[in-house]
Amino acid sequence: MFDIKGYLKERKKEVDEYIERYLPQDGEGPSILREAMRYSLLAGGKRLRPILVLTTYEIFGKNDKEEIMPVAVAQEYIHTFTLIHDDLPALDNDDLRRGKPTNHKVYGEAMAILAGDALFIESFNLLLKSTLPPDKLVSIMEIISREIGINGVIGGQVMDIESEKKRQCNPEIVHYIHERKTASFIRACIEIGAIAAGCDNKTFERLSRAGGLMGLAFQITDDILDETSTPEELGKTPGKDRTSGKCTWVKVYGLEKAQEEARKLIDEAVSILDSIKNSDILKEIAQFIVKRSY
Amino acid sequence: MFDIKGYLKERKKEVDEYIERYLPQDGEGPSILREAMRYSLLAGGKRLRPILVLTTYEIFGKNDKEEIMPVAVAQEYIHTFTLIHDDLPALDNDDLRRGKPTNHKVYGEAMAILAGDALFIESFNLLLKSTLPPDKLVSIMEIISREIGINGVIGGQVMDIESEKKRQCNPEIVHYIHERKTASFIRACIEIGAIAAGCDNKTFERLSRAGGLMGLAFQITDDILDETSTPEELGKTPGKDRTSGKCTWVKVYGLEKAQEEARKLIDEAVSILDSIKNSDILKEIAQFIVKRSY
Repeated sequence: MFDIKGYLKERKKEVDEYIERYLPQDGEGPSILREAMRYSLLAGGKRLRPILVLTTYEIFGKNDKEEIMPVAVAQEYIHTFTLIHDDLPALDNDDLRRGKPTNHKVYGEAMAILAGDALFIESFNLLLKSTLPPDKLVSIMEIISREIGINGVIGGQVMDIESEKKRQCNPEIVHYIHERKTASFIRACIEIGAIAAGCDNKTFERLSRAGGLMGLAFQITDDILDETSTPEELGKTPGKDRTSGKCTWVKVYGLEKAQEEARKLIDEAVSILDSIKNSDILKEIAQFIVKRSY
Repeated sequence: MFDIKGYLKERKKEVDEYIERYLPQDGEGPSILREAMRYSLLAGGKRLRPILVLTTYEIFGKNDKEEIMPVAVAQEYIHTFTLIHDDLPALDNDDLRRGKPTNHKVYGEAMAILAGDALFIESFNLLLKSTLPPDKLVSIMEIISREIGINGVIGGQVMDIESEKKRQCNPEIVHYIHERKTASFIRACIEIGAIAAGCDNKTFERLSRAGGLMGLAFQITDDILDETSTPEELGKTPGKDRTSGKCTWVKVYGLEKAQEEARKLIDEAVSILDSIKNSDILKEIAQFIVKRSY
């Protein structure tokens, strides 16, 4: 049996090495800003998004680190940017993230806002260091700006905040939030890996669909874990999403149906991936998404 | 004599029309987010940055709106993103901008943070709609991520906040802040116009140098106007930068020396531009930068 946990641990180690390597060096920007960016980038994390870029890229037999690593690590920059802003007092007001004080608890709100901004901007700086040709870089940037923008992650965050404020939660709202806030970015990472590898349109469409399903299953599983984990497992207070008035899948559909749905989405993703050669590891990751515990 | 005020007014009108045209439409993203983005984008402004892109591009006899307008308007998106975040309570805590309530005063802090994020991300979405070839788009993105990132605008903002907090202000600090927070972005707009037009390396270097000088003169003039304008002219409380502990050129060098320096920088910029054919309008803009009143 494939050791998916061991695989993810190895890939995380590799991604972490490149994160360290690419981090801004002494003399680049104010030192306090570098420190704040570094703090959140290195505060743990599964590195799922970069790993999805890498695993998808490698399906096509590619293995050029100069090409793909800047692109993969850039996704972790973007993810960290969204987390720092999400945790701010004006938004989710979280004191802990991955078991550590959030960025604004350590560096103050002003620096947390600017460190988030900086991570997003520097993600493009990093991405553009890839040796991929300009047309592929442009396609990748198109995916990022579409999947992170007002119809993607940021749009989802806005709806998340609004629904919480208005105490509105129903199937339509939770679908809107989860599709945009989480699924779109997970899908983007898989699309980016495929574009970088130069995959054909038909395979791209399939990977994109599988990615969206995996992303939604990932967020539903997050909602489930928020209810069922211990504080140690979760790295923050469990049940906070529900009690704070967040619109979650578990709140709308209940725990059991949420588990069923996540399982169903992954089965569908795997059956799409069955039609793509060499996608075994991506299938293992898909399976792991619903099986994982923190 | 060339009517620079009339010219800038005309170009602003043109830019405003394209801003309206490019704004996200109904159905794209949550309506409250579109509204918050729109509010700050359309809350006035000279549109200096897009105009610098256009004027520089046109030096080379180019006039393809499909190519250049998405790129020019994207700079106003980015500028507005930096203003919204700059005005936040955790940063400059400004209630007024261009005579109107700031974004967070109208939409709340959470939405202001996310609207800023969205404008920045959507600037890339917009930019990528340009019909410019991928290699030029990549070069433009490289300029943006360099000049806005930790060594550019964001780095300058961090130093601005830090120097205010620590009440530190001296020539080294004010140069650091002004070079990065303002000059680098003004220079970027001129560089972007030049790249879009396909200008040669030697001319690019000259334009870049002139742009840096114009940008620094622009910020010094801002510092001067902050001391010498009425609230109506300024659209916000005059003298606030000085009294709030901001490190300004006037505070370090005094009013008279600041005026001299701005004049000197512009003279130098104009003398560089003298060596570039058809740069008359850019020279007029350079002159206007130090002569302007609000």
